[in-house]
Amino acid sequence: MAGIIKPLNSIYDQFRRLPGVGNKSALRLAYHIIDMPEEDVRRLAETLLQAKKDVRFCQECFNLTDHDVCEICADAKRDHSTICVVEQPRDAMAMERSHGYAGVYHVLRGCLSPLDGIGPEDIRVKELLLRLEKTQVQEIILATNSNVEGEATAAYLAQLLRPYPVIVSRIARGLPMGGDLEYADEITLAKALENRTRIAE
Amino acid sequence: MAGIIKPLNSIYDQFRRLPGVGNKSALRLAYHIIDMPEEDVRRLAETLLQAKKDVRFCQECFNLTDHDVCEICADAKRDHSTICVVEQPRDAMAMERSHGYAGVYHVLRGCLSPLDGIGPEDIRVKELLLRLEKTQVQEIILATNSNVEGEATAAYLAQLLRPYPVIVSRIARGLPMGGDLEYADEITLAKALENRTRIAE
Repeated sequence: MAGIIKPLNSIYDQFRRLPGVGNKSALRLAYHIIDMPEEDVRRLAETLLQAKKDVRFCQECFNLTDHDVCEICADAKRDHSTICVVEQPRDAMAMERSHGYAGVYHVLRGCLSPLDGIGPEDIRVKELLLRLEKTQVQEIILATNSNVEGEATAAYLAQLLRPYPVIVSRIARGLPMGGDLEYADEITLAKALENRTRIAE
Repeated sequence: MAGIIKPLNSIYDQFRRLPGVGNKSALRLAYHIIDMPEEDVRRLAETLLQAKKDVRFCQECFNLTDHDVCEICADAKRDHSTICVVEQPRDAMAMERSHGYAGVYHVLRGCLSPLDGIGPEDIRVKELLLRLEKTQVQEIILATNSNVEGEATAAYLAQLLRPYPVIVSRIARGLPMGGDLEYADEITLAKALENRTRIAE
Protein backbone atom coordinates (compact mmCIF):
# COMPACT_ATOMS: atom_id res chain seq x y z
CA MET A 1 0.00 0.00 0.00
CA ALA A 2 1.34 3.42 -0.95
CA GLY A 3 2.25 6.03 1.61
CA ILE A 4 2.70 3.87 4.69
CA ILE A 5 5.94 2.85 6.35
CA LYS A 6 7.39 -0.58 5.64
CA PRO A 7 6.67 -2.36 8.95
CA LEU A 8 3.03 -1.30 8.86
CA ASN A 9 2.81 -2.31 5.24
CA SER A 10 4.22 -5.76 5.98
CA ILE A 11 1.53 -6.40 8.63
CA TYR A 12 -1.08 -5.00 6.26
CA ASP A 13 0.06 -7.40 3.53
CA GLN A 14 -0.17 -10.39 5.84
CA PHE A 15 -3.64 -9.52 7.14
CA ARG A 16 -4.94 -8.78 3.64
CA ARG A 17 -4.47 -12.47 2.77
CA LEU A 18 -6.85 -13.61 5.49
CA PRO A 19 -10.47 -14.32 4.56
CA GLY A 20 -12.96 -11.54 5.27
CA VAL A 21 -10.26 -8.95 5.93
CA GLY A 22 -10.54 -6.03 3.49
CA ASN A 23 -8.10 -3.17 2.89
CA LYS A 24 -9.55 -0.95 5.60
CA SER A 25 -9.70 -3.70 8.22
CA ALA A 26 -6.15 -4.81 7.42
CA LEU A 27 -4.87 -1.26 7.89
CA ARG A 28 -6.82 -0.83 11.11
CA LEU A 29 -5.42 -4.12 12.42
CA ALA A 30 -1.89 -3.09 11.43
CA TYR A 31 -2.17 0.15 13.43
CA HIS A 32 -3.64 -1.81 16.31
CA ILE A 33 -0.74 -4.30 16.34
CA ILE A 34 1.74 -1.41 16.47
CA ASP A 35 -0.19 0.08 19.42
CA MET A 36 -0.25 -3.24 21.32
CA PRO A 37 2.35 -3.95 24.04
CA GLU A 38 5.13 -6.13 22.67
CA GLU A 39 4.26 -9.04 25.02
CA ASP A 40 0.74 -9.12 23.61
CA VAL A 41 2.01 -9.22 20.04
CA ARG A 42 4.38 -12.01 21.04
CA ARG A 43 1.54 -13.94 22.65
CA LEU A 44 -0.61 -13.54 19.52
CA ALA A 45 2.23 -14.66 17.24
CA GLU A 46 3.15 -17.65 19.40
CA THR A 47 -0.47 -18.73 19.78
CA LEU A 48 -0.88 -18.96 16.02
CA LEU A 49 2.25 -21.06 15.59
CA GLN A 50 1.62 -23.31 18.59
CA ALA A 51 -2.03 -23.96 17.67
CA LYS A 52 -1.03 -24.76 14.11
CA LYS A 53 1.46 -27.32 15.49
CA ASP A 54 -0.99 -28.82 18.01
CA VAL A 55 -3.84 -29.49 15.62
CA ARG A 56 -4.07 -32.92 14.01
CA PHE A 57 -6.75 -34.82 12.16
CA CYS A 58 -8.82 -37.42 13.99
CA GLN A 59 -7.73 -40.89 12.85
CA GLU A 60 -11.36 -41.97 12.71
CA CYS A 61 -13.36 -39.11 11.23
CA PHE A 62 -10.71 -36.57 10.04
CA ASN A 63 -12.18 -33.78 12.10
CA LEU A 64 -9.66 -31.43 13.75
CA THR A 65 -8.40 -32.55 17.13
CA ASP A 66 -5.47 -32.11 19.49
CA HIS A 67 -5.44 -35.82 20.27
CA ASP A 68 -5.17 -38.93 18.08
CA VAL A 69 -8.92 -39.40 18.10
CA CYS A 70 -11.35 -36.49 18.43
CA GLU A 71 -13.62 -36.00 21.44
CA ILE A 72 -16.72 -37.02 19.52
CA CYS A 73 -15.26 -40.30 18.22
CA ALA A 74 -13.83 -41.04 21.69
CA ASP A 75 -17.23 -40.48 23.33
CA ALA A 76 -18.89 -43.85 24.05
CA LYS A 77 -22.22 -42.08 24.62
CA ARG A 78 -22.43 -41.00 20.97
CA ASP A 79 -24.23 -43.23 18.50
CA HIS A 80 -21.38 -44.79 16.49
CA SER A 81 -23.77 -46.48 14.10
CA THR A 82 -24.82 -43.16 12.53
CA ILE A 83 -22.26 -41.20 10.51
CA CYS A 84 -22.90 -37.66 9.35
CA VAL A 85 -20.73 -36.85 6.33
CA VAL A 86 -19.68 -33.19 6.10
CA GLU A 87 -17.23 -31.30 3.92
CA GLN A 88 -15.18 -29.43 6.53
CA PRO A 89 -14.46 -29.43 10.28
CA ARG A 90 -16.38 -26.13 10.59
CA ASP A 91 -19.45 -27.92 9.20
CA ALA A 92 -19.23 -30.58 11.90
CA MET A 93 -18.96 -27.78 14.43
CA ALA A 94 -22.04 -26.07 13.00
CA MET A 95 -23.95 -29.38 13.36
CA GLU A 96 -22.74 -29.70 16.95
CA ARG A 97 -24.04 -26.22 17.71
CA SER A 98 -27.53 -27.31 16.63
CA HIS A 99 -27.52 -29.84 19.53
CA GLY A 100 -29.69 -32.04 17.34
CA TYR A 101 -27.23 -34.78 16.50
CA ALA A 102 -25.95 -37.60 18.68
CA GLY A 103 -24.06 -39.66 16.09
CA VAL A 104 -20.48 -39.34 14.84
CA TYR A 105 -19.02 -37.55 11.82
CA HIS A 106 -16.95 -38.17 8.76
CA VAL A 107 -15.17 -35.09 7.47
CA LEU A 108 -14.39 -35.32 3.76
CA ARG A 109 -12.05 -32.32 3.92
CA GLY A 110 -13.37 -31.00 0.64
CA CYS A 111 -15.96 -31.73 -1.99
CA LEU A 112 -15.91 -32.92 -5.56
CA SER A 113 -15.06 -30.04 -7.86
CA PRO A 114 -14.02 -31.11 -11.36
CA LEU A 115 -13.34 -27.48 -12.34
CA ASP A 116 -10.69 -27.27 -9.61
CA GLY A 117 -9.43 -30.75 -10.43
CA ILE A 118 -10.70 -32.23 -7.17
CA GLY A 119 -11.89 -35.80 -7.61
CA PRO A 120 -12.95 -38.59 -5.21
CA GLU A 121 -9.33 -39.55 -4.51
CA ASP A 122 -8.60 -36.03 -3.21
CA ILE A 123 -11.20 -36.18 -0.45
CA ARG A 124 -11.70 -38.77 2.30
CA VAL A 125 -14.07 -41.08 0.41
CA LYS A 126 -11.95 -44.23 0.60
CA GLU A 127 -11.66 -43.76 4.36
CA LEU A 128 -15.46 -43.61 4.66
CA LEU A 129 -15.81 -46.97 2.91
CA LEU A 130 -13.13 -48.44 5.20
CA ARG A 131 -15.12 -47.28 8.21
CA LEU A 132 -18.20 -49.04 6.85
CA GLU A 133 -16.27 -52.30 6.62
CA LYS A 134 -14.68 -51.93 10.03
CA THR A 135 -17.69 -50.93 12.14
CA GLN A 136 -21.40 -51.67 12.24
CA VAL A 137 -23.00 -48.62 10.59
CA GLN A 138 -26.77 -48.27 10.20
CA GLU A 139 -27.18 -44.88 8.60
CA ILE A 140 -25.07 -42.41 6.68
CA ILE A 141 -26.42 -38.85 6.60
CA LEU A 142 -25.03 -36.82 3.70
CA ALA A 143 -24.68 -33.29 5.04
CA THR A 144 -22.54 -31.66 2.37
CA ASN A 145 -23.40 -28.09 1.44
CA SER A 146 -26.38 -27.34 -0.74
CA ASN A 147 -24.41 -25.74 -3.58
CA VAL A 148 -23.42 -27.31 -6.91
CA GLU A 149 -20.31 -29.05 -5.56
CA GLY A 150 -21.97 -30.20 -2.34
CA GLU A 151 -24.98 -31.64 -4.17
CA ALA A 152 -22.71 -33.39 -6.68
CA THR A 153 -20.64 -34.85 -3.84
CA ALA A 154 -23.79 -36.10 -2.10
CA ALA A 155 -25.08 -37.64 -5.35
CA TYR A 156 -21.73 -39.33 -5.96
CA LEU A 157 -21.59 -40.75 -2.44
CA ALA A 158 -25.22 -41.94 -2.61
CA GLN A 159 -24.36 -43.84 -5.78
CA LEU A 160 -21.15 -45.24 -4.29
CA LEU A 161 -22.88 -46.39 -1.10
CA ARG A 162 -25.75 -48.19 -2.87
CA PRO A 163 -24.15 -51.69 -2.61
CA TYR A 164 -23.61 -51.31 1.15
CA PRO A 165 -26.24 -52.54 3.63
CA VAL A 166 -26.72 -49.07 5.10
CA ILE A 167 -29.43 -46.40 5.04
CA VAL A 168 -28.22 -43.34 3.12
CA SER A 169 -30.05 -40.06 3.74
CA ARG A 170 -29.61 -36.43 2.78
CA ILE A 171 -30.30 -33.46 5.09
CA ALA A 172 -33.47 -31.56 4.20
CA ARG A 173 -33.24 -28.48 2.04
CA GLY A 174 -36.00 -25.87 2.19
CA LEU A 175 -37.01 -22.53 3.58
CA PRO A 176 -34.70 -21.56 6.47
CA MET A 177 -36.41 -21.20 9.84
CA GLY A 178 -37.56 -17.61 10.22
CA GLY A 179 -37.17 -17.16 6.46
CA ASP A 180 -39.74 -15.28 4.36
CA LEU A 181 -41.07 -16.83 1.16
CA GLU A 182 -40.72 -13.39 -0.39
CA TYR A 183 -36.95 -13.36 0.02
CA ALA A 184 -36.22 -17.02 -0.71
CA ASP A 185 -34.71 -17.87 -4.09
CA GLU A 186 -36.69 -19.94 -6.58
CA ILE A 187 -34.60 -23.10 -6.25
CA THR A 188 -34.97 -23.13 -2.48
CA LEU A 189 -38.73 -22.65 -2.83
CA ALA A 190 -39.01 -25.42 -5.43
CA LYS A 191 -37.04 -27.72 -3.12
CA ALA A 192 -39.18 -26.75 -0.12
CA LEU A 193 -42.32 -27.58 -2.09
CA GLU A 194 -40.92 -30.85 -3.43
CA ASN A 195 -39.87 -31.99 0.03
CA ARG A 196 -43.06 -30.94 1.81
CA THR A 197 -44.04 -33.19 4.69
CA ARG A 198 -47.52 -34.24 5.68
CA ILE A 199 -48.77 -32.71 8.89
CA ALA A 200 -49.99 -35.42 11.24
CA GLU A 201 -53.74 -35.20 11.78
CA MET B 1 -15.83 -20.73 23.08
CA ALA B 2 -17.68 -23.94 23.89
CA GLY B 3 -17.37 -27.05 21.74
CA ILE B 4 -14.14 -26.32 19.90
CA ILE B 5 -10.75 -27.88 20.48
CA LYS B 6 -8.17 -26.01 22.55
CA PRO B 7 -5.72 -24.93 19.81
CA LEU B 8 -8.56 -23.46 17.73
CA ASN B 9 -9.99 -21.79 20.80
CA SER B 10 -6.66 -20.18 21.64
CA ILE B 11 -6.42 -18.59 18.18
CA TYR B 12 -10.06 -17.58 18.45
CA ASP B 13 -9.39 -15.87 21.79
CA GLN B 14 -6.45 -13.93 20.38
CA PHE B 15 -8.32 -12.74 17.29
CA ARG B 16 -11.40 -11.79 19.33
CA ARG B 17 -9.34 -9.08 21.05
CA LEU B 18 -8.56 -7.31 17.79
CA PRO B 19 -10.71 -4.37 16.75
CA GLY B 20 -13.49 -5.10 14.26
CA VAL B 21 -13.17 -8.87 14.64
CA GLY B 22 -16.40 -10.42 15.91
CA ASN B 23 -17.08 -13.97 17.10
CA LYS B 24 -17.83 -15.32 13.63
CA SER B 25 -14.82 -13.67 11.96
CA ALA B 26 -12.51 -14.85 14.74
CA LEU B 27 -13.70 -18.43 14.30
CA ARG B 28 -13.37 -18.22 10.53
CA LEU B 29 -9.84 -16.85 10.89
CA ALA B 30 -8.95 -19.61 13.38
CA TYR B 31 -10.04 -22.31 10.91
CA HIS B 32 -8.14 -20.51 8.16
CA ILE B 33 -4.92 -20.39 10.21
CA ILE B 34 -5.19 -24.14 10.83
CA ASP B 35 -5.63 -24.69 7.08
CA MET B 36 -2.61 -22.53 6.16
CA PRO B 37 0.77 -24.16 5.46
CA GLU B 38 3.01 -23.93 8.54
CA GLU B 39 5.53 -21.66 6.74
CA ASP B 40 2.78 -19.13 6.04
CA VAL B 41 1.66 -19.11 9.67
CA ARG B 42 5.29 -18.65 10.70
CA ARG B 43 5.68 -15.75 8.26
CA LEU B 44 2.52 -14.09 9.60
CA ALA B 45 3.65 -14.51 13.21
CA GLU B 46 7.17 -13.25 12.53
CA THR B 47 5.93 -10.28 10.51
CA LEU B 48 3.82 -9.07 13.42
CA LEU B 49 6.70 -9.30 15.88
CA GLN B 50 9.31 -7.82 13.55
CA ALA B 51 7.10 -4.90 12.49
CA LYS B 52 6.27 -4.16 16.10
CA LYS B 53 10.03 -4.02 16.83
CA ASP B 54 10.88 -1.90 13.77
CA VAL B 55 8.36 0.85 14.34
CA ARG B 56 9.46 3.93 16.26
CA PHE B 57 8.07 7.42 16.72
CA CYS B 58 9.44 10.28 14.65
CA GLN B 59 11.59 12.50 16.91
CA GLU B 60 10.07 15.58 15.30
CA CYS B 61 6.38 14.94 14.84
CA PHE B 62 5.70 11.63 16.70
CA ASN B 63 4.24 9.97 13.64
CA LEU B 64 5.14 6.30 13.15
CA THR B 65 8.38 5.65 11.30
CA ASP B 66 11.07 3.03 10.82
CA HIS B 67 13.80 5.68 10.99
CA ASP B 68 14.68 8.34 13.58
CA VAL B 69 12.79 11.00 11.66
CA CYS B 70 9.76 10.21 9.47
CA GLU B 71 9.78 10.60 5.71
CA ILE B 72 7.57 13.68 5.82
CA CYS B 73 9.74 15.53 8.36
CA ALA B 74 12.86 14.52 6.44
CA ASP B 75 11.44 15.83 3.16
CA ALA B 76 12.94 19.28 2.37
CA LYS B 77 10.22 19.86 -0.25
CA ARG B 78 7.48 19.91 2.40
CA ASP B 79 6.48 23.24 3.93
CA HIS B 80 8.00 23.07 7.42
CA SER B 81 6.37 26.34 8.47
CA THR B 82 2.90 24.78 8.48
CA ILE B 83 2.09 22.15 11.10
CA CYS B 84 -1.07 20.08 10.96
CA VAL B 85 -1.94 18.76 14.42
CA VAL B 86 -3.68 15.36 14.41
CA GLU B 87 -4.59 12.88 17.10
CA GLN B 88 -3.14 9.66 15.71
CA PRO B 89 -0.73 8.43 13.01
CA ARG B 90 -3.71 7.05 11.05
CA ASP B 91 -5.13 10.58 10.90
CA ALA B 92 -1.92 11.92 9.38
CA MET B 93 -2.13 9.08 6.87
CA ALA B 94 -5.72 9.99 6.02
CA MET B 95 -4.63 13.59 5.39
CA GLU B 96 -1.80 12.34 3.16
CA ARG B 97 -4.27 10.34 1.12
CA SER B 98 -6.19 13.54 0.35
CA HIS B 99 -3.08 14.85 -1.48
CA GLY B 100 -4.17 18.33 -0.40
CA TYR B 101 -1.51 19.08 2.19
CA ALA B 102 2.14 19.97 1.69
CA GLY B 103 3.11 20.92 5.24
CA VAL B 104 4.30 18.74 8.13
CA TYR B 105 2.42 17.10 11.01
CA HIS B 106 2.37 16.94 14.74
CA VAL B 107 0.83 13.76 16.10
CA LEU B 108 -0.57 14.23 19.61
CA ARG B 109 -0.94 10.47 20.09
CA GLY B 110 -4.28 10.97 21.80
CA CYS B 111 -6.75 13.67 22.72
CA LEU B 112 -7.90 15.27 25.95
CA SER B 113 -10.40 13.03 27.66
CA PRO B 114 -11.03 13.94 31.31
CA LEU B 115 -13.38 10.96 31.72
CA ASP B 116 -10.50 8.62 30.85
CA GLY B 117 -8.08 10.66 32.94
CA ILE B 118 -6.16 11.88 29.89
CA GLY B 119 -4.90 15.43 30.35
CA PRO B 120 -2.50 17.69 28.39
CA GLU B 121 0.55 16.08 29.98
CA ASP B 122 -0.50 12.66 28.57
CA ILE B 123 -0.45 13.80 24.93
CA ARG B 124 2.34 15.51 22.96
CA VAL B 125 1.35 19.12 23.73
CA LYS B 126 4.61 20.19 25.38
CA GLU B 127 6.51 18.88 22.37
CA LEU B 128 4.37 21.01 20.04
CA LEU B 129 5.30 24.16 21.98
CA LEU B 130 8.97 23.15 21.85
CA ARG B 131 8.73 22.87 18.07
CA LEU B 132 7.29 26.38 17.90
CA GLU B 133 10.29 27.72 19.80
CA LYS B 134 12.80 25.73 17.78
CA THR B 135 11.57 26.38 14.26
CA GLN B 136 9.93 29.20 12.33
CA VAL B 137 6.24 28.21 12.18
CA GLN B 138 3.65 30.35 10.43
CA GLU B 139 0.47 28.35 10.80
CA ILE B 140 -0.85 25.58 12.99
CA ILE B 141 -3.85 23.72 11.59
CA LEU B 142 -5.85 21.93 14.27
CA ALA B 143 -7.09 18.74 12.62
CA THR B 144 -8.27 16.74 15.61
CA ASN B 145 -11.46 14.74 15.16
CA SER B 146 -14.81 16.45 15.18
CA ASN B 147 -16.16 14.61 18.25
CA VAL B 148 -16.42 15.89 21.83
CA GLU B 149 -12.82 15.02 22.76
CA GLY B 150 -11.37 16.25 19.48
CA GLU B 151 -13.19 19.58 19.66
CA ALA B 152 -12.17 20.04 23.29
CA THR B 153 -8.54 19.29 22.39
CA ALA B 154 -8.66 21.81 19.54
CA ALA B 155 -10.21 24.46 21.81
CA TYR B 156 -7.58 23.81 24.46
CA LEU B 157 -4.72 24.08 21.94
CA ALA B 158 -6.17 27.26 20.40
CA GLN B 159 -6.23 28.84 23.85
CA LEU B 160 -2.71 27.62 24.65
CA LEU B 161 -1.29 28.90 21.35
CA ARG B 162 -2.81 32.37 21.66
CA PRO B 163 0.42 34.00 23.02
CA TYR B 164 2.49 32.61 20.15
CA PRO B 165 3.06 34.64 16.95
CA VAL B 166 1.43 31.98 14.77
CA ILE B 167 -1.81 31.64 12.83
CA VAL B 168 -4.01 28.95 14.41
CA SER B 169 -6.75 27.46 12.23
CA ARG B 170 -9.25 24.62 12.49
CA ILE B 171 -10.21 22.32 9.61
CA ALA B 172 -13.70 22.99 8.23
CA ARG B 173 -16.61 20.94 9.46
CA GLY B 174 -19.70 20.65 7.32
CA LEU B 175 -21.59 18.41 4.94
CA PRO B 176 -19.31 15.64 3.63
CA MET B 177 -18.71 15.75 -0.13
CA GLY B 178 -21.36 13.65 -1.80
CA GLY B 179 -23.44 13.84 1.39
CA ASP B 180 -27.21 14.41 1.32
CA LEU B 181 -28.75 17.09 3.54
CA GLU B 182 -31.50 14.57 4.27
CA TYR B 183 -29.13 12.14 5.95
CA ALA B 184 -26.84 14.61 7.71
CA ASP B 185 -27.24 15.03 11.46
CA GLU B 186 -28.45 18.35 12.90
CA ILE B 187 -25.13 19.40 14.39
CA THR B 188 -23.30 18.89 11.10
CA LEU B 189 -25.96 20.91 9.28
CA ALA B 190 -25.81 23.71 11.85
CA LYS B 191 -22.02 23.77 11.49
CA ALA B 192 -22.25 23.73 7.70
CA LEU B 193 -24.61 26.69 7.80
CA GLU B 194 -22.51 28.60 10.32
CA ASN B 195 -19.33 28.10 8.31
CA ARG B 196 -20.88 28.90 4.93
CA THR B 197 -18.48 30.64 2.53
CA ARG B 198 -19.35 33.35 0.06
CA ILE B 199 -19.28 32.30 -3.54
CA ALA B 200 -17.06 34.60 -5.56
CA GLU B 201 -19.13 36.66 -8.05
